[in-house]
Amino acid sequence: MERTLVEDTLGKVGEVVKLQGFADTVREMGGKLTFIDLRDTSGKIQCVAFGEANNEEVKSTSTESVIEVVGLVKQRPEKMVNKDIETGTVEIEIQEFKLLSKSEPLPIQPNSKAENETEVDVRMDYRWIDLRNTKKSIIFKVWTELERSFREYWIQNRYTEIHSPKILGAPSESGAEVFEVKYFDRTAYLAQSPQFYKQMAMAAGFERVFEVGPVFRAENSNTIRHATEFTGFDAEISFIDSHEDVMKEIEQMVAKGIADVKANYGEQIKKELGVEIEVPALPFPRLTMKEIKEILGKLGIKSEKSGDLSSEEERELGKYVKEELKHDFVFVTEYPAEFRAFYHMRKEEDNTLTKGFDLVFKGLEIVTGAQREHRYETLKEQALQKGLKQENIQFYLDFFRYGCPPHGGFGMGPGRVIMKMLGLDSIRESSFLFRNPRRLNP
Amino acid sequence: MERTLVEDTLGKVGEVVKLQGFADTVREMGGKLTFIDLRDTSGKIQCVAFGEANNEEVKSTSTESVIEVVGLVKQRPEKMVNKDIETGTVEIEIQEFKLLSKSEPLPIQPNSKAENETEVDVRMDYRWIDLRNTKKSIIFKVWTELERSFREYWIQNRYTEIHSPKILGAPSESGAEVFEVKYFDRTAYLAQSPQFYKQMAMAAGFERVFEVGPVFRAENSNTIRHATEFTGFDAEISFIDSHEDVMKEIEQMVAKGIADVKANYGEQIKKELGVEIEVPALPFPRLTMKEIKEILGKLGIKSEKSGDLSSEEERELGKYVKEELKHDFVFVTEYPAEFRAFYHMRKEEDNTLTKGFDLVFKGLEIVTGAQREHRYETLKEQALQKGLKQENIQFYLDFFRYGCPPHGGFGMGPGRVIMKMLGLDSIRESSFLFRNPRRLNP
Repeated sequence: MERTLVEDTLGKVGEVVKLQGFADTVREMGGKLTFIDLRDTSGKIQCVAFGEANNEEVKSTSTESVIEVVGLVKQRPEKMVNKDIETGTVEIEIQEFKLLSKSEPLPIQPNSKAENETEVDVRMDYRWIDLRNTKKSIIFKVWTELERSFREYWIQNRYTEIHSPKILGAPSESGAEVFEVKYFDRTAYLAQSPQFYKQMAMAAGFERVFEVGPVFRAENSNTIRHATEFTGFDAEISFIDSHEDVMKEIEQMVAKGIADVKANYGEQIKKELGVEIEVPALPFPRLTMKEIKEILGKLGIKSEKSGDLSSEEERELGKYVKEELKHDFVFVTEYPAEFRAFYHMRKEEDNTLTKGFDLVFKGLEIVTGAQREHRYETLKEQALQKGLKQENIQFYLDFFRYGCPPHGGFGMGPGRVIMKMLGLDSIRESSFLFRNPRRLNP
Repeated sequence: MERTLVEDTLGKVGEVVKLQGFADTVREMGGKLTFIDLRDTSGKIQCVAFGEANNEEVKSTSTESVIEVVGLVKQRPEKMVNKDIETGTVEIEIQEFKLLSKSEPLPIQPNSKAENETEVDVRMDYRWIDLRNTKKSIIFKVWTELERSFREYWIQNRYTEIHSPKILGAPSESGAEVFEVKYFDRTAYLAQSPQFYKQMAMAAGFERVFEVGPVFRAENSNTIRHATEFTGFDAEISFIDSHEDVMKEIEQMVAKGIADVKANYGEQIKKELGVEIEVPALPFPRLTMKEIKEILGKLGIKSEKSGDLSSEEERELGKYVKEELKHDFVFVTEYPAEFRAFYHMRKEEDNTLTKGFDLVFKGLEIVTGAQREHRYETLKEQALQKGLKQENIQFYLDFFRYGCPPHGGFGMGPGRVIMKMLGLDSIRESSFLFRNPRRLNP
């Protein structure tokens, strides 16, 4: 017999079906009746065993065991309808029962509350049990949809997908915060971003590329916004006039992604997480760093660095933009060169400012982007000014010696986007398995 | 002025357009005329400068420099039509010219022939120049399309995407051929596959997952089929009856992927690479290891190991299947337990055989799959039999203690699929940047 999904039982009243899933709850009623709520990815349904079907195997089923039930789909009397679940109007009269995998007593409950860091750690230790709940699984369905939608945008707009190497012969950025790998008889490094290789694709004439893959940061900090390994969405495009072309690309893509998430999962997100997804209006507001510092200054927010935003400043900026500009997003432009990577192009009008920008979503930076410097001599000079050693980056500088189109691009942290979109506490919750300096298991 | 793509000039005769791309060839005709073939991702077109427009900047343009041309699209006289390029019926009369990025003399030509390993190495050293050719860029357009098509299959069939960590607290397989990472004050390991985490997703009730990401193998071998880092396509599905359910999933997905590549790039592939894409018929043939050894024996092919296939045996099997069964694909089933990972489920009828299989495409293994052992005690026993230390894999064994659906899945090497589909010499050619023990740069 073919398996039926729980959600499909509604259309099969009077039929005998086979269901497979977890025993969400088991209630033994004085030996005569056993009720088991069976849960699969599509929903939950009440199964009832009585008479001969209510055998010892059914009665002794432990919660969260994996079971198979063959039974009759029956309409429930009106007064017995369970309004808490979607299949509450029907139930399964168990005819055959099979225990597929028995659960030992659970160390944690699915989606249990964690009151403090230690409890969060235990939850993460048993992540596979923690995730057995629609309030958790929805996060990864939303990720799947968001990524699908972004990819659709990219492919409709002539991007080529690349998969660049993560093991490098030299550190991909400054050399700080990089993990070392023992590579046979030498030392290699884990990519801190696909930056150099996206740019290589521009020099190869690919014109538009995207990459989805892990990035590694040996940053010894434990915050709700940082991980030592996370998934990055990266893109790079050629023949731009300025970073404004990159920002336009980002805002269109982000608005489409959120619209698709709302269309396909909006109701479910509201039900499970109590969050209303808002599709942002185009264009997103843009503010220069200078303007932002002035605004925050008037609001009495202390500025630590004149050319960069602390996480507190990002939060306050988010609030301001929401209240005054009625928007969840804001591009922060005109970053001073002092706070940006050497490969960000400088502004013609003012060499101390870059064509680099960040995108802040609900008070959290989710994107860093820029027009890149594609002129070999200028790029080399900017690298040396930042204290990089030419021999370490010559392989990268060479990309710009044999013709390279003007280009720009961005890197996005989808874990942060999902965290903010769904109102989660931390990127731990939007990561399938989180990694920080303390956490390497499971 | 908006940029026009080369392929769109055909519909713009009589208009003034702006083109941007590489100077594919530059021919200076005795000071009076300069012809520049401009190349972008969509094609090539001849641009001609004469009179005032034929200035010193135009004349001195070096090959492979990046240029911008504003000019009039003109129909060429019938006898002047260039049949070698798609825009051969039109040309651009240059009005304005801008050098965007000057190329130094080239160390190699795009898509140059390499006669030996040293020459291949030089080609790979200058990969971004090597790739500046439609015979090369088509490979990555095909990859983008194949991955798009597989993802479409997965999403249509209720798969959730996961991004599992690549830095692990313990080696993910046997501990051999694993790269070590310095992780703050301890040693971590690079994932040899997402195997354990795909299975964790099954224990989390995700039912169907896919992952696309890098896998790392510290294998000190230099062949045309091996890399120390490559992209893997992985999937895992729950509630299967046997590995046959996994094989059905694979053959449907592969046939769809190849059909989509043929529909969208078939003509271009034929033109650029001279290869005719064949969509495989369903179902793919299946042969047991025993049957294959008998067949190869009769053909006089020497067998090195009774339960595994050497690369020569794979090649000969591919030829046999093509000739006798008229098929490019064959599933190799009933692998002996001796040659499979401990987590492959054994056959009930014969405990020395597994429910593991490979898929061979044109004589090369491209997929390894199996039904997995989901019963804790059996799994533990099989791991110990293989000599694994329980303490190293207890974190993984724990996934199976609290209810885990029966499941199976596979890992695919898309670099190998593309290599065979497009008739390339090596996976070096289907990798954006190739990594082996000798090669870490660029």
